Amino acid sequence: MAPLIHRVVRRLGTEAARDESAGLAEEVPVALVYNGISHAVMLASPQDLEDFALGFSLSEGIIDRADDLLDCETTPSDLSVSESLAGVPEQGISLELKVTLRCFMRLKERRRTLAGRTGCGLCGTESLAEAIRPVRREVAPVVVATAALARAMAEMPAHQTLSQATGATHAAAWCGLDGAVRLVREDVGRHNALDKLIGAMALAEVDPADGFIAVTSRASYEMVYKTASAGVGLLAAVSAPTGLAVRTAESAGLVLAGFVRGDRATVYTHPERVR
Amino acid sequence: MAPLIHRVVRRLGTEAARDESAGLAEEVPVALVYNGISHAVMLASPQDLEDFALGFSLSEGIIDRADDLLDCETTPSDLSVSESLAGVPEQGISLELKVTLRCFMRLKERRRTLAGRTGCGLCGTESLAEAIRPVRREVAPVVVATAALARAMAEMPAHQTLSQATGATHAAAWCGLDGAVRLVREDVGRHNALDKLIGAMALAEVDPADGFIAVTSRASYEMVYKTASAGVGLLAAVSAPTGLAVRTAESAGLVLAGFVRGDRATVYTHPERVR
Repeated sequence: MAPLIHRVVRRLGTEAARDESAGLAEEVPVALVYNGISHAVMLASPQDLEDFALGFSLSEGIIDRADDLLDCETTPSDLSVSESLAGVPEQGISLELKVTLRCFMRLKERRRTLAGRTGCGLCGTESLAEAIRPVRREVAPVVVATAALARAMAEMPAHQTLSQATGATHAAAWCGLDGAVRLVREDVGRHNALDKLIGAMALAEVDPADGFIAVTSRASYEMVYKTASAGVGLLAAVSAPTGLAVRTAESAGLVLAGFVRGDRATVYTHPERVR
Repeated sequence: MAPLIHRVVRRLGTEAARDESAGLAEEVPVALVYNGISHAVMLASPQDLEDFALGFSLSEGIIDRADDLLDCETTPSDLSVSESLAGVPEQGISLELKVTLRCFMRLKERRRTLAGRTGCGLCGTESLAEAIRPVRREVAPVVVATAALARAMAEMPAHQTLSQATGATHAAAWCGLDGAVRLVREDVGRHNALDKLIGAMALAEVDPADGFIAVTSRASYEMVYKTASAGVGLLAAVSAPTGLAVRTAESAGLVLAGFVRGDRATVYTHPERVR
């Protein structure tokens, strides 16, 4: 399934209207199936799905390390007729994942305690007590220069292939301590882009002490939580964080920088670690 | 609970670093509890929560009309100690909703068919077949001028109080056919902002034939689905739509306009209805 499609659109403006072809980012339902049991469906860009499977499994605490994921098979499927749009059935993708017995037993136990209740929103969370999880991992106490944050943001656009063609996708990048962009992943959803990046970082066996993560979006609680869960000590965002994101970063020991634009940045937590 | 908080941040740039107070948008776990049963938790801006409860219930098809929601009580609560950040327990909010017996029986039935499985992502959806729902409502076949789209976007910022103070929130607006902004709702999440608007529109007994919805974000499948479910015939977005959003708008008879900026707009579906 292609992450980029083309379609004729009408451009309106001060000149005469004109019809022309435009690039659109595809958005596809992706089911995560663990050892045969369907766990979640996310709408995502259909690329780098193995990275997504690994990163999501790590971020959600379903597995503890990359080796806990034993297999990942991508199976496209037609959705049923009732979901056809304009007469053409939509496609979906199943990610058939195999995790270790230990992880699967733990997941089943977690699911059993939720049995008979459906979840929503926060990945199956339905009670307030489960909504905010403490970060259980030590993050790398990295120190970076403001110039490194600026360099990361300046380098990112050249790596955002899908965004350049569509203007519709977010990106998350793993950057060296000098700000050099080393890995980039894109998705129509910012959480998915970050999960894909975390998966790619795990596969590349990246050391969290060697860099930081930069994102093209705002920094919500979930973005900070996922970054800290990967052991990364600094998150740089193009836009603003939320109050809850700042408190989460504060308590996890993560440097949270927002409005990283040009030479400027606003540091919300642990500012002594940005030189 | 205040939707806006203040915190000292460090501004870095070409001048010397300076510490100053900045506004931050709060992000709070909000549980939706129907007739005593917890259904979902969303992270949201803690304002206009009655609108949110009503709009979410309508968008998700839990109720069919505003009158099906009989009561809505907002109860703040401390989260448990394990969720405390920096030693201070986080707060959550329960929206205790009472719906008609008919709607509650239907919701229980829907939940029973999911019993023993937890959901994730798309509001409890865990199988591909449930991920994409056809729009079951006729939308108003409105016709508008490009100038009306431009006017809506030009008027919106003045109504975005929280965004002006924080730069961190999205907005959704109900606009007249001439583009005059009539109702605006804000949230850290774009889906929540739209649900709040749809709730406010239902309370105000707005006729979908009298206008369109404008949003400050991109247009994903969910944004188009929610707009069409409210019977509204045109969605104008500041940024790009996805491929799935375009197909959904096409089959629902909804005009989807993206990149509405200045005098320009790109129309993705039913362009004959933008003059």
